[in-house]
Amino acid sequence: MSRPAGPATFGERVAEGFRTVYEGERVHAEDSPFQRIDVYEHPFFGRILTLDDLVQTTERDEFCYHEMLVHPALCALERPRRVLIIGGGDGGTLRRVLEHGVEEAVMCEIDEAVVAACREHLPSVSAGALDDPRARVIFGDGAAFVADAAPSSFDAILVDGSDPIGPAAVLFGREFFAACRAALAPGGIFVTQSGSPLFQSGEFAGAVETLSGVFDAVEPYLGAVPTYPGTIWSYTAATDGDPPSRTGAEVVERRLRERGVRCRYYTPAVHVSCFALPAIVDRARETGEPAPLPRS
Amino acid sequence: MSRPAGPATFGERVAEGFRTVYEGERVHAEDSPFQRIDVYEHPFFGRILTLDDLVQTTERDEFCYHEMLVHPALCALERPRRVLIIGGGDGGTLRRVLEHGVEEAVMCEIDEAVVAACREHLPSVSAGALDDPRARVIFGDGAAFVADAAPSSFDAILVDGSDPIGPAAVLFGREFFAACRAALAPGGIFVTQSGSPLFQSGEFAGAVETLSGVFDAVEPYLGAVPTYPGTIWSYTAATDGDPPSRTGAEVVERRLRERGVRCRYYTPAVHVSCFALPAIVDRARETGEPAPLPRS
Repeated sequence: MSRPAGPATFGERVAEGFRTVYEGERVHAEDSPFQRIDVYEHPFFGRILTLDDLVQTTERDEFCYHEMLVHPALCALERPRRVLIIGGGDGGTLRRVLEHGVEEAVMCEIDEAVVAACREHLPSVSAGALDDPRARVIFGDGAAFVADAAPSSFDAILVDGSDPIGPAAVLFGREFFAACRAALAPGGIFVTQSGSPLFQSGEFAGAVETLSGVFDAVEPYLGAVPTYPGTIWSYTAATDGDPPSRTGAEVVERRLRERGVRCRYYTPAVHVSCFALPAIVDRARETGEPAPLPRS
Repeated sequence: MSRPAGPATFGERVAEGFRTVYEGERVHAEDSPFQRIDVYEHPFFGRILTLDDLVQTTERDEFCYHEMLVHPALCALERPRRVLIIGGGDGGTLRRVLEHGVEEAVMCEIDEAVVAACREHLPSVSAGALDDPRARVIFGDGAAFVADAAPSSFDAILVDGSDPIGPAAVLFGREFFAACRAALAPGGIFVTQSGSPLFQSGEFAGAVETLSGVFDAVEPYLGAVPTYPGTIWSYTAATDGDPPSRTGAEVVERRLRERGVRCRYYTPAVHVSCFALPAIVDRARETGEPAPLPRS
């Protein structure tokens, strides 16, 4: 390993003078052509994957993130057949997509080394999904893949990428969003993770605003991911069809049951409620302006 | 000061091997008869109050906690006249209670030194509420105060205390809950903060279970408090009258407007949605058993 195995302390800046600290054991370290990859064994969160020192997923809270990225969109669709995932190297998004009985799930991940590290060190996250016959894993540039995709070829496109600062910035641009819109079938739904609405509120508001220039309906929603900075995490759905917030709890309940989806975070009630935003987040959504925590 | 003023690093354990770290400047340190009191100036959160080294409130995110402790219950009541607050030394809960046009708000705080420190160092949290003519601040034991209260004397009782481990444990016991029930007017609502549903899930489940043995309807609900460990925070409402989850968004909207309550976190949509619990939290509520984060 390019960095030493053994006890390691790592963490993330959440805001000025405020950070999280993890104490674990490094079990993998690698510099891929795209990024620094580390895997740690942690006493509470199990295996933790970091990319460029930012926590991407952990064995014990991955379900919070992956369920909320996937299920609101797929439960809003009557019969999702083909789904595209951009990023998602740990396979947790792919796993949840396959639970909906899709015919094909295409995953376009730029960094093959991430998939290899997760297969080796965090296999419980993908739980075999990467080898499912309905899964097609492509290693390449997600933006280029979408630009080349046939029109109307996916019922859902899910962006499971890094933050809008750095190499994944293109995945938050108008051109990429427009290409996704073209690649979606009529009524199809686009979803991207859109950062911390409290601590990265500028990025969150920017994603919502840019998407609003491309799609008819744009709906940010929230969930909790204990290991993401600020814990409260935003996702933004966009569609020219029925917005996912209009899918009622009874319909969600029936689809989960019919498809045999088992959840530990998402529920029909969570589906209906996740679109309710705290006032300061709602204001950021409306104005496109950052809404940092105010003074009292 | 009994501890040095100046640069200080502090923080909290969230789980094994996982903690938060704050870097600030200590501006106040005191050992009261009840606890260690510190106040810090922090570059992001403004003034931070810690008791026994646990963050209690900060200038910049106090609204998240105080609005969610107060508004769901008071917006569920058609005309709250008399409200009792147990704890709440920083005055932020009192301030929100007074916004509802109550006739009297009684605050029973055990530690006069906390109120004095907050008056001096975090005056923006109470924003004058401690000197409002409708407020009556009593320094004493909250459990004893409730036990001695006349029957049916309060429309709402709000417990703004510390965690169920330590000196505030009595505020999570059956005897205290039963005394609160007796002190509530018909249809009155009791609310307590009930800890992190993810990282203190045993305490959360225990509070819900104990309350369920005392009140007809018990409704836990969630909000985000960035400086509380795990961020997602639980509150539990209990009543023998109409459960607050049944108050619709239109009624909440009208009551907020008529009373002139201005919010930065709580909204009518948040009222309706905050009772939706993630699946693992809902399971803890149902079973009374802790629901720690599962392995994938």
